[in-house]
Amino acid sequence: MERIYRACLIIIGNEILSGRTQDANMAFLGEQLNEIGISLDEARVVPDVPERIISTVNQVRGEFDYVFTTGGIGPTHDDITSQCIADAFSVALILHPDAHKTMVDFYGEGNLNEARLRMAHVPDGAILIENDISIAPGYQIDNVYVMAGVPKIMQAMFTKLAPRLVGGKPVISRTISSEAKEGDIAVDLGEIQTAFGDIDIGSYPLMGRGGTGVRIVMRSVDELRLDQCALKVSQLLKKHQP
Amino acid sequence: MERIYRACLIIIGNEILSGRTQDANMAFLGEQLNEIGISLDEARVVPDVPERIISTVNQVRGEFDYVFTTGGIGPTHDDITSQCIADAFSVALILHPDAHKTMVDFYGEGNLNEARLRMAHVPDGAILIENDISIAPGYQIDNVYVMAGVPKIMQAMFTKLAPRLVGGKPVISRTISSEAKEGDIAVDLGEIQTAFGDIDIGSYPLMGRGGTGVRIVMRSVDELRLDQCALKVSQLLKKHQP
Repeated sequence: MERIYRACLIIIGNEILSGRTQDANMAFLGEQLNEIGISLDEARVVPDVPERIISTVNQVRGEFDYVFTTGGIGPTHDDITSQCIADAFSVALILHPDAHKTMVDFYGEGNLNEARLRMAHVPDGAILIENDISIAPGYQIDNVYVMAGVPKIMQAMFTKLAPRLVGGKPVISRTISSEAKEGDIAVDLGEIQTAFGDIDIGSYPLMGRGGTGVRIVMRSVDELRLDQCALKVSQLLKKHQP
Repeated sequence: MERIYRACLIIIGNEILSGRTQDANMAFLGEQLNEIGISLDEARVVPDVPERIISTVNQVRGEFDYVFTTGGIGPTHDDITSQCIADAFSVALILHPDAHKTMVDFYGEGNLNEARLRMAHVPDGAILIENDISIAPGYQIDNVYVMAGVPKIMQAMFTKLAPRLVGGKPVISRTISSEAKEGDIAVDLGEIQTAFGDIDIGSYPLMGRGGTGVRIVMRSVDELRLDQCALKVSQLLKKHQP
C-alpha cells in the first residue's frame, strides 16, 4: 500500500476573508504539492487574531504530515504570524543571524529600522526558506512551513523548498468533458465508481456560455487503471451525448 | 457594544484542493455577508470524505452564528454533502415534498431517475433555499446553510437567502494605495493602529508591473473614526512617497 502524504494549508489574513483579495496560493500549492506526491487535504482561512492562528496551527500540525502557512510575515503591525508560530511551539522569537546579515547587507545598518528587523525574527529552531525575489525569508519549524502571502514571493519560496519535501507517488488524472447531462449519467457513473474503488472519480457540472455539460475527473496513482476507467467513462458519456 | 455576527464557510470538494478548480465562492460570500453585517470569520476547504465533512460541520456550527457550505449537492455519487449534513445532525435524509414536486413538474415522472431524485432529498427538518437558475434547491438546517458549488447557482441561492439572514452594522472600509515602502511606514503605522484600536488596519505590499508599493485598508463600523484614521494614514504615506 502506497503511503499517502497529507498536507494542510493555513491561509492567514483578514483581506482574504473580507473578499477584498482573491486567494491564489491554494490552487498553486494544491497542484505543486501533487506533483511531488503530497496531497493537499485541507485548507483553512483564519483572521489576523493570535488565538485563532495559534489554535489552528496546534490543531492541524499533529494531524497532517505537512502544514503550510501563507501570509502575515511582513514588517507591519498586522504581521503577527511569526509570533503566533513561536507561541504555538512555546519557543522564543529570535533574531536569526543569517536573515539578519542578509538584511544588513541589503539595506545597510542605517535603513534597517525596527520594522524591517521584525522580518529577520523567526521562532527559535526554525530553518530558513530563502527566495529569489524578496529579502525576507520564510522558514520551517518541525513540520510547519511558513511562507509569504504575496503569490509571487510564496511561489519563489516554494520553488526553493520543494526539493526538501518528501512525498509519495504523484496522483495523475484524466479529464473528460461532454455535453451530456449530469443527471442522465449519474447512475451509471456511480456503478463505474463502484467497479473502480481505487480511483477517485469526480463529476462537475459545466455551466458556461457554450451551454451546459459535465466534466469527469479521474485521479489515481495507477496509470493503467486510470486508462481502463477513462475508457468506461468515455463510452458512457458518448451514449448520453445530446 | 455592537453585536458581531460571525460566519464560517465550509467549501466541500476535492477539485478545489487539487488546484484544478479555483474557488470563487469565498470572496463572493465574504463581500456579500459583510454588506448585511455578518463577518466571514473562517473558511475551511475539506475533501469529499464523509467523516471529514461531518466532523467539520459539527466543530464549527456551535462556534459560529452562521455556517455556509458550498459543493456536493448534485446528482452524482460524489455528491455526499446532504447525507453528511443529515448525519452531523443525527436526522434522516428525507424526500422533501416541495423539492420533489418541482422536479416532477420539470423533468416529468419518466425522466426523474434515482440520481436526480437525490437532489430532492434533504435532512429532516430542513427549510429549502430556492434559486432562479437550477431546479435543485439548497437548504437550511438550524444555523447551517447548504448551497451549490457552481458559483452561478450559489450566488442565485444566496440572493434568495440573504433577506432571511440577521446581521449587525456593516463594516465599511477605506483603502489608500501608495508607492511608499512598507518597511518605511511600518513603525508609524503601528502607532496609528495603537491610537485607533477600534479600527482594523491592514497593510498589504503591492508587487505589480507598475512597481512596488503598499495598500492600506482600514475597516470599521464607525465612518467618522474611519475618516479620522484615513487622514492620518494619508499624511503618513505622503511623507514617504518616493
